[in-house]
Amino acid sequence: MERCRLVFSGSGGQGIITAAVILSEAAVLYEKMNAVQSQAYGPAARGGATRSDVIISESNINFPKVIQPNVLICLTQEAYNAFCNIIRPGGLLITDTRFVKTEKKVDAQQKELAMYAAVMEKIGKPIVFNICMLGAVIRMADLVGPESIMKVLESRIPSGFLEMNRKALELGMELAGTVKS
Amino acid sequence: MERCRLVFSGSGGQGIITAAVILSEAAVLYEKMNAVQSQAYGPAARGGATRSDVIISESNINFPKVIQPNVLICLTQEAYNAFCNIIRPGGLLITDTRFVKTEKKVDAQQKELAMYAAVMEKIGKPIVFNICMLGAVIRMADLVGPESIMKVLESRIPSGFLEMNRKALELGMELAGTVKS
Repeated sequence: MERCRLVFSGSGGQGIITAAVILSEAAVLYEKMNAVQSQAYGPAARGGATRSDVIISESNINFPKVIQPNVLICLTQEAYNAFCNIIRPGGLLITDTRFVKTEKKVDAQQKELAMYAAVMEKIGKPIVFNICMLGAVIRMADLVGPESIMKVLESRIPSGFLEMNRKALELGMELAGTVKS
Repeated sequence: MERCRLVFSGSGGQGIITAAVILSEAAVLYEKMNAVQSQAYGPAARGGATRSDVIISESNINFPKVIQPNVLICLTQEAYNAFCNIIRPGGLLITDTRFVKTEKKVDAQQKELAMYAAVMEKIGKPIVFNICMLGAVIRMADLVGPESIMKVLESRIPSGFLEMNRKALELGMELAGTVKS
């Protein structure tokens, strides 16, 4: 992987920004890559769609904003409607079946995963939905290893919650494995 | 205030990025401004200094990276040494007395606050150090009202922790009041 541009989108409270920060830290601290992570807020944020951009690269990154993502994650219908057209042709578009109906024709590999349903069924805590999503993303896009994500989590959350997060990460990777082409 | 460019710096685990995200959300959701918030990671991040940039503006923001901040916060000596020279001439440079000795001559209003010591003495929980710092910043730079910060916190943290965060925010504002010119 030389350079990957990702856009995470959804609504406030889904842990979008946290997931983007965790991925960036994992890439930089444990995989020797460079990363830039940003949020632009404005009238759109007040309307509800949260967006967080990440660029991961082996070389230097000069411009931090993502124009056309290789990987676009949409966790609400509103986010899908707002952003599905910015994806790079042939890119990877990941949505959650609970929240998004993929109505539009987009030139992308659309992958619909039942992440939220799986988290609620197997773990029962919606708070790790974002980590499950991150598991799917790193597996489908071959970005960083799961152990790098876990190392970041170990430095950020109380040890009593690590096992639940590990389960969520693995669940996301499994789900990705079922649809990966 | 037309446009304010801030750089928060320190080490991982001090809650730098969280503080930057909270400030941005407060400005956008409750003060009708625009905001861009970003982290650039690279070899420097592996060395230890965390940096998070925020631009808050009444008008549109085109370029998300801060070159010369009006307001620079340094919570470790390493961050101070790395970033004190990027401040805009005459800008506001906030440091914590526990972690930083301000050795260099910088063309800025240097404000040294005993934030960490006050948090430990009055609240006893280092986890709200970043919120105390945010209180000092919003007071000294007249950025957003404390009630806007509290509204963001209400949406992010369990209600049992709100009072502790409110105390930390007010403590930071009080400390800022003692040195504000």
